[in-house]
Amino acid sequence: MDNPSNDIPLKPTSVRKCETVCIFGTGDFGRSFGTKMLQCGYNVVYGSRNPQSSNLIPKGAKVLSHEEAILESSIIVLAIHRENYDFLTQLSGQLNGKVLVDVSNNLKMNQYKESNAEYLASLVPGANVVKAFNTVSAWALQSGTLDASRQVFVCGDDVTAKDMVMDIARAIGLTPLDQGTLLSAKEVENYPLQLFPMWKLPMYICIGFTVLIFLYCLLTEVIHPYATTRENTLYLVVMTIPNRVFPIVSLILLALVYLPGIIAAFLQLYRGTKYSRFPDWLDKWMLCRKQLGLVALAYAFLHAIYTFMIPIRYYVRWWSDQYTISQVTTPHEFSGYYAWFSDSYIALGILGFFFYLLLGITSLPSVSNAVNWREFRFVQSKLGYLTLVLCTAHTLLYGRDRFLYGSAYKWFLPPAFVVSLIIPCAVLVLKFITVIPCLDSRITKIRQGWERKAQS
Amino acid sequence: MDNPSNDIPLKPTSVRKCETVCIFGTGDFGRSFGTKMLQCGYNVVYGSRNPQSSNLIPKGAKVLSHEEAILESSIIVLAIHRENYDFLTQLSGQLNGKVLVDVSNNLKMNQYKESNAEYLASLVPGANVVKAFNTVSAWALQSGTLDASRQVFVCGDDVTAKDMVMDIARAIGLTPLDQGTLLSAKEVENYPLQLFPMWKLPMYICIGFTVLIFLYCLLTEVIHPYATTRENTLYLVVMTIPNRVFPIVSLILLALVYLPGIIAAFLQLYRGTKYSRFPDWLDKWMLCRKQLGLVALAYAFLHAIYTFMIPIRYYVRWWSDQYTISQVTTPHEFSGYYAWFSDSYIALGILGFFFYLLLGITSLPSVSNAVNWREFRFVQSKLGYLTLVLCTAHTLLYGRDRFLYGSAYKWFLPPAFVVSLIIPCAVLVLKFITVIPCLDSRITKIRQGWERKAQS
Amino acid sequence: MDNPSNDIPLKPTSVRKCETVCIFGTGDFGRSFGTKMLQCGYNVVYGSRNPQSSNLIPKGAKVLSHEEAILESSIIVLAIHRENYDFLTQLSGQLNGKVLVDVSNNLKMNQYKESNAEYLASLVPGANVVKAFNTVSAWALQSGTLDASRQVFVCGDDVTAKDMVMDIARAIGLTPLDQGTLLSAKEVENYPLQLFPMWKLPMYICIGFTVLIFLYCLLTEVIHPYATTRENTLYLVVMTIPNRVFPIVSLILLALVYLPGIIAAFLQLYRGTKYSRFPDWLDKWMLCRKQLGLVALAYAFLHAIYTFMIPIRYYVRWWSDQYTISQVTTPHEFSGYYAWFSDSYIALGILGFFFYLLLGITSLPSVSNAVNWREFRFVQSKLGYLTLVLCTAHTLLYGRDRFLYGSAYKWFLPPAFVVSLIIPCAVLVLKFITVIPCLDSRITKIRQGWERKAQS
Repeated sequence: MDNPSNDIPLKPTSVRKCETVCIFGTGDFGRSFGTKMLQCGYNVVYGSRNPQSSNLIPKGAKVLSHEEAILESSIIVLAIHRENYDFLTQLSGQLNGKVLVDVSNNLKMNQYKESNAEYLASLVPGANVVKAFNTVSAWALQSGTLDASRQVFVCGDDVTAKDMVMDIARAIGLTPLDQGTLLSAKEVENYPLQLFPMWKLPMYICIGFTVLIFLYCLLTEVIHPYATTRENTLYLVVMTIPNRVFPIVSLILLALVYLPGIIAAFLQLYRGTKYSRFPDWLDKWMLCRKQLGLVALAYAFLHAIYTFMIPIRYYVRWWSDQYTISQVTTPHEFSGYYAWFSDSYIALGILGFFFYLLLGITSLPSVSNAVNWREFRFVQSKLGYLTLVLCTAHTLLYGRDRFLYGSAYKWFLPPAFVVSLIIPCAVLVLKFITVIPCLDSRITKIRQGWERKAQS
Repeated sequence: MDNPSNDIPLKPTSVRKCETVCIFGTGDFGRSFGTKMLQCGYNVVYGSRNPQSSNLIPKGAKVLSHEEAILESSIIVLAIHRENYDFLTQLSGQLNGKVLVDVSNNLKMNQYKESNAEYLASLVPGANVVKAFNTVSAWALQSGTLDASRQVFVCGDDVTAKDMVMDIARAIGLTPLDQGTLLSAKEVENYPLQLFPMWKLPMYICIGFTVLIFLYCLLTEVIHPYATTRENTLYLVVMTIPNRVFPIVSLILLALVYLPGIIAAFLQLYRGTKYSRFPDWLDKWMLCRKQLGLVALAYAFLHAIYTFMIPIRYYVRWWSDQYTISQVTTPHEFSGYYAWFSDSYIALGILGFFFYLLLGITSLPSVSNAVNWREFRFVQSKLGYLTLVLCTAHTLLYGRDRFLYGSAYKWFLPPAFVVSLIIPCAVLVLKFITVIPCLDSRITKIRQGWERKAQS
Repeated sequence: MDNPSNDIPLKPTSVRKCETVCIFGTGDFGRSFGTKMLQCGYNVVYGSRNPQSSNLIPKGAKVLSHEEAILESSIIVLAIHRENYDFLTQLSGQLNGKVLVDVSNNLKMNQYKESNAEYLASLVPGANVVKAFNTVSAWALQSGTLDASRQVFVCGDDVTAKDMVMDIARAIGLTPLDQGTLLSAKEVENYPLQLFPMWKLPMYICIGFTVLIFLYCLLTEVIHPYATTRENTLYLVVMTIPNRVFPIVSLILLALVYLPGIIAAFLQLYRGTKYSRFPDWLDKWMLCRKQLGLVALAYAFLHAIYTFMIPIRYYVRWWSDQYTISQVTTPHEFSGYYAWFSDSYIALGILGFFFYLLLGITSLPSVSNAVNWREFRFVQSKLGYLTLVLCTAHTLLYGRDRFLYGSAYKWFLPPAFVVSLIIPCAVLVLKFITVIPCLDSRITKIRQGWERKAQS
């Protein structure tokens, strides 16, 4: 066998150890970046309009004019604002074939029609523009406390230029992620300006329901007793009412996670095809299901903890003592019926919470990346519906036949748990309908690409 | 210093922006994939047997004959079933040097002797076959709800061809993962057909023990009282018996996590070498230890929650009330002995659960990836045995000397907690033996490669 | 459009399928690695001083002299200790252009001045040295139980050589991670020798405070009653005192997470610049904030579980029974005031714990990688302070006005909760000062790079 390694093109990579990086701009990022590069053994050259005012640059770096600095290095990091890119057009000739790294960020998302990097590429068409490092803060670079994401999104049209930038990122301890061509620059520039964009809608929905249910409970449990019997039960707002609001909103949100999928199925059944777009609101709803589910889990968790703390509350202990004392004189019979009911709804609640948590754990990025599509669907769909069934049954058993008694109705308002059951029960009934064999097979056919029109 | 960037081979990557992708097959995946590619700014050409029946293709795409379509693009995505690959042999000439992307999946694992991609490569030897996108569902592509893994496994013999396919994957928002050469195609094709393959054995073991212990508790706590005193204690099956089954099975499973390691050590001691294979059952057992441990953790979690809920149960509150009332007339002395015992087994249980959870958290893929081998072994071995010791001590203290009294034996059956202690105590004793210096040093030597035979 | 795929340089990658790998060294790692390579379809050749003593090599592998073995392969894996590298100088000629894989590990961190890989590169300057596989244990390779990190850190000066090694890593099911040039070899070699280096300082701090607070509680709650009234309350050390130590230390540690940031802000304010280095102790403190926070969370978790178990403790049940019985004869009034207080501090504690957990979840590597810098700062700073405020308020309400009464002071020592409030309150007050508009705008300016000196 001959020796294939002789075919390997031996690049002079050893020069990399004393590579020079040129930085334009001595602002905060420019200086922090330069300091970091110097620490990692690179030579650093700053390009400046007046190389004499060099009191701000880190020790060990040179300051030259822009023209001279370019000659020293094959990579130029542009740590200046987009507004000041114009002067680069004069340097077009020298920049030809160089790697220009755009690290800029904007103040608002989609501030300009084209991304800064694409704008730069149009100004200096001969240079290989690479977008990178815009997600890294100067503060993080300097303090070394890269607690947050070490990911550096890198995009650019030239693969070799990208590789050079990714090597620098690795050298200073960051994880470069290739985001493809410069077309992705807009997305890369928008990224650090986002503040949980996927969480806005779920948070609004959650806050809306929380306020609504809270006011409902306040009306029936605090205002009603005060209005009718002058009884002051305002202390209930601290723990009793929250521990009613959390499970109710949690159950409603969990049902809302599965409702859009059912609506979509019925829409596809009605249209007889899956190739027409869903209405916009349905699309948005479907995209935030994971976040909705996690908010629901958070509320379920709070409900669990509030419930664990019940026996410790002074209010509960006092009433429980009164109840015990009342039995000293008139003993109560043990009721097997109540024992069954109490244990059953508690057990259902525990199991529901357990599967809730399982769903949450499989939503962790590292876990969901480790399962395949079939496994993910199994967990999120099968286990999801199991959770919904368990939690709905938990609420039904908790309420038992109480909704039948007039005394449970305050000002004709049913107890809060009745309100909470409307959406979950509707979802379960609708889901049950789609599982009926004839409808199920039709939906499956449509989802596999079958179309009613195409048949006719 | 001279300018190394001049050496960079400037590829005409700008053509990528208006790249054309050819798709064979207008089935569900073909159409979804084409729609997605069009949205991302690619040109899409469909190759079809009869290009006139084009009512199904997405808007903006062209439909041509297979021969014409190939000429338009350097990448051909094959969205057809393996059974229909034959016709490609006729196109062998035109496909020479092209990148052929095999996206096919099978219905069963290892359905064919060779993977679809390798079969394809044998049919069209001149093409660069790349396996990719088979883990991505058409539904996910079309709805944009890529909740599950965004990972695209890519494998192929030609690096440049792979890179082109990985760029497409990135363009449509997926994360390509290089899986090496086409040899991996079989594994890549099997991947989406798996449903938690590593979890099957642990689940069977867990279900087996759960049923067994449940029946044992049913016999001693429900059937025995009914048979002897006609007392109806069936309500215990809802919470009391599960809260006995969960901790017992959890402890047994935790012990089973550490048992195979000990068996392996004794086997190596006996054989005097580590270079002979373990029996198959031991290998399988060792490979599912992580899953066994996680199931054990789930049961421990359920035990914890069930225990937190004890004071809220009607059954418990009723009996506790009776006990309190009984003290009104005949006061009970405070027993420092019981206070010690009760607090100790609770505290041991809490600490055991805490380390259990730590073990679970370090099993999360992102956490275990962030620790090195030495740290992982420290956590999983040292902390694991600490957990086992704490949980066994928790059970021992819970039971105290109760196993001595005849009244605790129903039909000569010991209380359930005695049953649960057999395996954990055995594991701890055996582990203790392997830690004895003379044995320990021998095992260490064997694990470092020493062999008894080699010495003689 | 012309056909760009014709430009793709078709490498003869098909030879890779029957690639030969040469291994020097038949020690444990050498044999395990060879066995694994054979299983994956590679040819394996061992290079040995005396090729006749070949009883230890895996079946299917050839053993040759060093010189002959080199000729068979382009990759040589060096599974020998650094001490035995010398003989390679004689093979310098044959090794020219070959890929030399250094898999060695040292016994101590920074054992030698230069890394083993760099030492190797200096011995054989013509070879392309790649550092890899040192984090993989022979045991893991052989048993197939790669439970721990599958990550293989790869570094080397030649990109093509690195790629070849990374392909081998992928072939045997590992995940190669490019760590840049051979400069990183030292770090790569130190990596497997670390045992949670970032956790040492936080653990010492935590243990210190735990012991201190434990002794404080022991003094006031066990020794003081014994010394004054001969009352034996030693059983409190099992649960009551730990459940006091955990929350106190947790709160102090949480405050210590936020203290260095405030100190840094005041230091920058005083110095009028951010470009002078922080003192070393502050740097170290800031780097272990995440770990400190996680230890604090662990303690908060233990506090929560201990609290959930309170009603089940024999000690608590006995005293609660006595209290109930005492009410039979002299009924106690329901106190709305206590109901408010009790519910409020419990609710604050629950919410504090909830946000604590959120902080912990966002510290998981996979979660923190999925959020951008702005989102991470929002969670860790805003939510962090919210947690601190909630937990401090929880403690304040728990203590209420008790610190005013002389009876709460044992030997002039204030109750433990007073001690726990000192640092958190100080942190909150200092933080409040930095948020005052005039100071806040100054700090913001300084952090954006403004300097007092530069202005003057």
